[in-house]
Amino acid sequence: MSEFLVIPRDAHDTLVIRAYESRGYSHDEAVEGAKLAGEASRHGIRTHNALKALHLDHLFGSEVGGCVPGAEIEVKPSRFAASEIWNSNKKLGQSVAYRAINRAIELADQFGIGQVAIDNCFHYLWGGGYVMEAAERGYFAYTNCTSTLAEVVPFGGKFPTLGTNPHSWGIPTTEAVGYPIVIDWATSTVAMGRVQVMKREGKQLPPGAAVDKDGNPTTDPNAVAALLPFGAHKGYGMALINEIFGGLIGGSLPTIRGRQTSIPGEKSTSAFYFQVIHPDAISGSGFAQGRDQKGNLKAVLDDILGHGNEKAMLPGQLEAEFRKRSDAANGLLFTEAEIAEFNELSSSLGLPIWDTATLAPA
Amino acid sequence: MSEFLVIPRDAHDTLVIRAYESRGYSHDEAVEGAKLAGEASRHGIRTHNALKALHLDHLFGSEVGGCVPGAEIEVKPSRFAASEIWNSNKKLGQSVAYRAINRAIELADQFGIGQVAIDNCFHYLWGGGYVMEAAERGYFAYTNCTSTLAEVVPFGGKFPTLGTNPHSWGIPTTEAVGYPIVIDWATSTVAMGRVQVMKREGKQLPPGAAVDKDGNPTTDPNAVAALLPFGAHKGYGMALINEIFGGLIGGSLPTIRGRQTSIPGEKSTSAFYFQVIHPDAISGSGFAQGRDQKGNLKAVLDDILGHGNEKAMLPGQLEAEFRKRSDAANGLLFTEAEIAEFNELSSSLGLPIWDTATLAPA
Repeated sequence: MSEFLVIPRDAHDTLVIRAYESRGYSHDEAVEGAKLAGEASRHGIRTHNALKALHLDHLFGSEVGGCVPGAEIEVKPSRFAASEIWNSNKKLGQSVAYRAINRAIELADQFGIGQVAIDNCFHYLWGGGYVMEAAERGYFAYTNCTSTLAEVVPFGGKFPTLGTNPHSWGIPTTEAVGYPIVIDWATSTVAMGRVQVMKREGKQLPPGAAVDKDGNPTTDPNAVAALLPFGAHKGYGMALINEIFGGLIGGSLPTIRGRQTSIPGEKSTSAFYFQVIHPDAISGSGFAQGRDQKGNLKAVLDDILGHGNEKAMLPGQLEAEFRKRSDAANGLLFTEAEIAEFNELSSSLGLPIWDTATLAPA
Repeated sequence: MSEFLVIPRDAHDTLVIRAYESRGYSHDEAVEGAKLAGEASRHGIRTHNALKALHLDHLFGSEVGGCVPGAEIEVKPSRFAASEIWNSNKKLGQSVAYRAINRAIELADQFGIGQVAIDNCFHYLWGGGYVMEAAERGYFAYTNCTSTLAEVVPFGGKFPTLGTNPHSWGIPTTEAVGYPIVIDWATSTVAMGRVQVMKREGKQLPPGAAVDKDGNPTTDPNAVAALLPFGAHKGYGMALINEIFGGLIGGSLPTIRGRQTSIPGEKSTSAFYFQVIHPDAISGSGFAQGRDQKGNLKAVLDDILGHGNEKAMLPGQLEAEFRKRSDAANGLLFTEAEIAEFNELSSSLGLPIWDTATLAPA
């Protein structure tokens, strides 16, 4: 029996667009929200599919004022030609992020490197999606953001004051290895969602992933009060970088971010940072053996994965393989449980439900 | 009894400059080499003091053609105004790095962000030193480089094909917390030097730090054949980023980098990447409670280190404390063993030796 059933991309997008529109989002916003969710599912990023996006919007977004449907992005004045500063006015994060990475690409085309810093943001969901698209278009792209909730304890501390703060890099390696390398992860060892799964399954967490209410390390998912950064002080440094960008851009104190329990006069929004590099702008053009830039990068990657390292993978490889599988099936792959959730959504919107008996397995 | 004796900075610099000059380096190069070594010692970075710098130059540098004293930096043509591409022609890494970070600052002054990518490089020793200086001058600075030797195994592999590839970020937080935050580490869990120390002391390594000759994890320093990236696949991604920058800039295959066993037509040099952001270029200027940008960053950092996290530290804090100690002692702090090594160097150059009986303890 197959694990997944195939939903045509059009059917998925139609439903998700309707769902966003029913919450007051503009058609453009709904399309951008559906696009990111569709791409996440296409690449097997099941933690960031449309169901999760809409659930997040419900908990922290349009339902409670964390996100403002139809908000307009304000481009702030800047004296720096390769940089832009935006106030997103709590517009849907996916819409803001797609526009920001496109603008950063235009800046990189002109200056070799470009950046867009954005204040007053609401969750963009899957940073990997934006940098992957930029990488497929031939650019070296990077983004980070401050996560909604402070769930991570600083190295040496005991109380969660850092977001799970992700970093995402997309590398233009489609010609070199067949897909863009995408390095994309949160700076906690595991996500809070993973702790819930382990609790349900009665399993232990890996060491160095979480602390209990007294700030002591624990591997018992039932005792977990907060998460730890990956890689001790090094991952802590990586988590701190997002808070520093957020602080410089205009973000809130981490412990009140995304919370209803606000302090008068304080903000509770996230901040986004986007940066794109044009590969020509860092090409020394003195490559060995007469290789061009792409050929040299391929030679380097082949060297890394050679010498008995054939079982090692490149970041983004699993996502590229899942994408092939999705594309071969002419749709997006969902479990029966996920389809049941989509059908609840369809019912609530008065849309036809998907009949699992007629859907192709994959 | 005190651990350290005080050497006046002038005496240190005079000796180190003479040592570089005796190897054929120009006065400017010698001064820049002495400056970085002096700053490393001043901040307690004992792994990157002048003795290590000169030893590295002996093993991989001017002695064997890995570094070319007096080499001229060639600025390559570029159509991108915020980016420069340099061929360093194997000039002393410290000289190249100081000049690159200065140039990146000039570009950031003009464009909000600037980058300098450098091919044909020789080891710049301590990336933290360059970004710290930029941060003290008020900039957000970043550098990475490909390390001389491939000593690190890709996640899921068994053979070392990655450098210990460091990343260094310097953050302009002197007004906010009294010193620049400097996030600066190699992407291996531990350095190979640490393995040697553990071997001598008969101690075990932490789990996840190294593999034996068959690629199996080991905590026995005597069995170590290669290192592992910190934080599993996440640290692997961070190590890969340097190789990707290196590959795009023009660097060599990692497994032959810094080795005498070259492949005809292949290069064996490293690559450097520098990037500087002007904080004004990412300031949303909508800070809560009427704070300014520095005040907002301070509020964020105070929040992170509050709530019972008073024992947590900021990256760069220990270095800042050591610097205070050095400055209070009016010099650089070295152990008797280190001073003995400096005295050997002085003898070989016909310079007066330092009499430990007359040096002040600290």
